[in-house]
Amino acid sequence: MARSTGKDVKRKRKVVLASGTFDLLHLGHVKYLEEAKQAGGKNAKLVVIVARDSTVENRKGRRTVMPEDQRRALVESLKVVDEAILGYENFDMGNVIEAIKPDIIAVGHDQTDIEAEARKAVEEKGLAIKVIGIGRFGKPELNSSLKIKRKIMELYKGRYE
Amino acid sequence: MARSTGKDVKRKRKVVLASGTFDLLHLGHVKYLEEAKQAGGKNAKLVVIVARDSTVENRKGRRTVMPEDQRRALVESLKVVDEAILGYENFDMGNVIEAIKPDIIAVGHDQTDIEAEARKAVEEKGLAIKVIGIGRFGKPELNSSLKIKRKIMELYKGRYE
Repeated sequence: MARSTGKDVKRKRKVVLASGTFDLLHLGHVKYLEEAKQAGGKNAKLVVIVARDSTVENRKGRRTVMPEDQRRALVESLKVVDEAILGYENFDMGNVIEAIKPDIIAVGHDQTDIEAEARKAVEEKGLAIKVIGIGRFGKPELNSSLKIKRKIMELYKGRYE
Repeated sequence: MARSTGKDVKRKRKVVLASGTFDLLHLGHVKYLEEAKQAGGKNAKLVVIVARDSTVENRKGRRTVMPEDQRRALVESLKVVDEAILGYENFDMGNVIEAIKPDIIAVGHDQTDIEAEARKAVEEKGLAIKVIGIGRFGKPELNSSLKIKRKIMELYKGRYE
């Protein structure tokens, strides 16, 4: 066994925070989460906030296809995810940061609102949290819930109505 | 260290084979895969055959929403899955059994064709493979790709057309 010098400091495991609705899970979501986790280095812990149904209705003006508890459980069943938790009913980035204490907040290519809120909260509180943007994965085809919905409409119109 | 008696036989890790299309991934899929893996006991290896687009078209007479390579990668990104591979263009249960050498074949509640083919192949070859059926998970609501498609049609009709 190697002799301990007493100077070994146990490196803190970095916590990366990601978020989303994940209504129809697709490979673009997984790639976003994988890149987010990688940003925290080896042994990073990835915590994912899954948006409440009510938050999606209020912010995006649409109903979700899958209920929030199923979306959360599905996200947590991914290899890359250490913990998936439902967001607050009244989503507030400051509260989320206080609860999760992330080292890094990773925002997806289509999360401009979340990015602005994260940067504002970090700045206002003077926190040492990095806010990073994750690019879109590959071709946009089917890496978007909207595109998946459109394809379903196109394929099944007149069949399941 | 414990003294080796020479009688310790390393227990073979059981291989469980599951299969499906997994076109719109939902929690029912994950529950099916988890139950399948549990049937193989501790340390079981779960191998999942993901149906080719052409196989789905030939057998079910419909096009998939997500292309086969994306469906395969998404299934492999689940914690419960050790390996996900695309099926043969001409799906044949005998060939699959020969390639994967499973101890257990787990079929889902809606896979009556697959179950019959698996039982036939096992019987014909006189193999020591258990074929087990996995029940439907919880309420059928949204644990069915068809129901998800119907809900999307209902929610987005006239919006994304």
